[in-house]
Amino acid sequence: MMKKVRLGIVGLGAQGGAYAEFIKEGRVNNMEVGAICDVDPEKKAVAEEKYPDVPFYDNYIEMMESGNVDAIVTCVPHYLHPEMGIEALKRDIHALVEKPAGVYTKQVKELNKFAATKPEVTFGIMFNQRTNELYQKVKEIIDNGEIGEIRRTNWIITTWWRPQGYYDQSAWRATWEGEGGGVLVNQAPHQLDLLQWIAGMPKKVYSNVKYGYQRDIAVEDEVTAMFDYGNGATGVFITATHDVMGTDRFEILGDNGKIVVDDSKTVTIKRLKKPESEMSATMSMQDVMEIFMGKGPGEMYDEEVIEFESVWGAQHTAVMENFAANVLDGTPLLAPGSDGINGVALANAIHLSSWLGKEVELPLDEDLYLAELNKKIKEEKSE
Amino acid sequence: MMKKVRLGIVGLGAQGGAYAEFIKEGRVNNMEVGAICDVDPEKKAVAEEKYPDVPFYDNYIEMMESGNVDAIVTCVPHYLHPEMGIEALKRDIHALVEKPAGVYTKQVKELNKFAATKPEVTFGIMFNQRTNELYQKVKEIIDNGEIGEIRRTNWIITTWWRPQGYYDQSAWRATWEGEGGGVLVNQAPHQLDLLQWIAGMPKKVYSNVKYGYQRDIAVEDEVTAMFDYGNGATGVFITATHDVMGTDRFEILGDNGKIVVDDSKTVTIKRLKKPESEMSATMSMQDVMEIFMGKGPGEMYDEEVIEFESVWGAQHTAVMENFAANVLDGTPLLAPGSDGINGVALANAIHLSSWLGKEVELPLDEDLYLAELNKKIKEEKSE
Repeated sequence: MMKKVRLGIVGLGAQGGAYAEFIKEGRVNNMEVGAICDVDPEKKAVAEEKYPDVPFYDNYIEMMESGNVDAIVTCVPHYLHPEMGIEALKRDIHALVEKPAGVYTKQVKELNKFAATKPEVTFGIMFNQRTNELYQKVKEIIDNGEIGEIRRTNWIITTWWRPQGYYDQSAWRATWEGEGGGVLVNQAPHQLDLLQWIAGMPKKVYSNVKYGYQRDIAVEDEVTAMFDYGNGATGVFITATHDVMGTDRFEILGDNGKIVVDDSKTVTIKRLKKPESEMSATMSMQDVMEIFMGKGPGEMYDEEVIEFESVWGAQHTAVMENFAANVLDGTPLLAPGSDGINGVALANAIHLSSWLGKEVELPLDEDLYLAELNKKIKEEKSE
Repeated sequence: MMKKVRLGIVGLGAQGGAYAEFIKEGRVNNMEVGAICDVDPEKKAVAEEKYPDVPFYDNYIEMMESGNVDAIVTCVPHYLHPEMGIEALKRDIHALVEKPAGVYTKQVKELNKFAATKPEVTFGIMFNQRTNELYQKVKEIIDNGEIGEIRRTNWIITTWWRPQGYYDQSAWRATWEGEGGGVLVNQAPHQLDLLQWIAGMPKKVYSNVKYGYQRDIAVEDEVTAMFDYGNGATGVFITATHDVMGTDRFEILGDNGKIVVDDSKTVTIKRLKKPESEMSATMSMQDVMEIFMGKGPGEMYDEEVIEFESVWGAQHTAVMENFAANVLDGTPLLAPGSDGINGVALANAIHLSSWLGKEVELPLDEDLYLAELNKKIKEEKSE
């Protein structure tokens, strides 16, 4: 039997605390908690009570150099993920970074660049929703070409409701300096990643972003973004933290069919019997009327509906288990760390378009983004 | 018993022909076909066979001056609606214009201006979907403030599938000179009107419009538009003629609830027990977790689902009947003709934004729009 991967948890907040519990409960094969690190002395007391046998550090470099951990997970503010990732990899410590990979692409690029020099060390990212069989199925259908070339994507994902009390929990929350953004940086990175994982990256982005619209915060609580994929395909992405009756509806239209995902639970797949382009080229309006008024849609496409169940926490433990398997036997990563940059690039492009009031192209002008972000941080401090 | 309104049908195409049939079948109370007019000699033969007792004209002015009609309906190319409306009202002939009221706001404004000088003559527009009880219910809920101030609207209306054969039916179809646009001018005016009728007019519009994307046409077959209502509220409007598995999903989020209309058949209304702003201000994250994980959404809002049935043609006959009632006894119009300008302004703004590559404000610069439209017509001719 192989040895277990000893994970160093950096940051014993809500997320780090949950991971420690999952591992303690034996829900993550081949992983154990090697050490815990937090700069907050109160967390030390918590750790000593809950995990008396686990070494505690207030400095993550010290933890990494202690010999007690083989890997770390970075449950810390987003800005710190790239730096911690690099410091870990530098020491041949496997790095599982939390999402988002960073706040701006320039810092994430540095992380990816360094990671590329360490191919033998495991570098993963906590895109837990990639372990969701529903999205794996959707990706498989797209990758197999079952619905043909993508023409349009629409995702309305407003299930990220957060009351003012959530934002008021800590001073760094929902600030430019502390988080570097709102719903795009904190909640929606999951969907930004899934979207690019499934449908690819757009070439152009235009947005209408609402900063402090329904909440007393500096950063965004509502986003409407429009994508142009450069090959004719278009997309819309909508997210918000002020919709308590949140919608989660993801639609992908292809030449050969359509996929609609409702509430991340139900997938409806329509597969055309003939490509739409062929139907258009060969059907008369009379044929069309017959289909619409008489024969019904069954003649045009087959419809499949699949329901998926999800278990709280199962996605996170699946990422950790996959990460450990990669460390131990080279099992391919579901979410390689280097993939993290795409969601960050999307979030940055959406911010930048709203700041400049115009469409922006991808790859992004990363120096311009950082300069504009630093302006926001400066403005925020002077208020 | 009052006398019936004698309608002069201008244009015996698909629409005009259907109206003649509806009236002949006695489906429109208080209305009869007074005369039919068409410039096409083949239509004369059709009219003589089907309606041997109805006078036929090849000139609509002559028909209006014959004493055979009290009103006209303009089932002719869109560009002609304003002119015909004015000529009718000028002669105290009641005018029911087809949608859209015109192709560009400048011409529709002239019509409205003239109509304002003739308040005693009935001026209506064929916004048949306003007679749909479903949309009347949605408007009533919004107008009553039941879901509070609108925060967001999203309408994906891609059920307007048209194959290439549809566009190839006549040379004027889907050209700038013949129709002045594609899906925005021909199919989607219904939804553009319903949207503004229910949610009001936006202040700013940005769009990504695809011209001849999946069809061999000069005009648009796909539209993504983003609205800014100027008071914080935002909207997205998507339409296309290339989605044979079309989506029709209209969502309105308010401070106090949400309405989702699926397939113009099912309305789901969620009414919050407390305004969202109050929930945000008073709930802790702990309260939130309890709602989401334990008590379920039933605690937060009441949900009502209403199904509506629709009958082919019933909407059109209802508009005609309401128009006749206004003529005969002053019953208020469901769709006053002067309302037609709003949908035209939305369509124009969406075109203009895509032509200029930037956000445009409403009210629109109508001279600029017309100049740009005329450029398209000129380009099209020189090809």
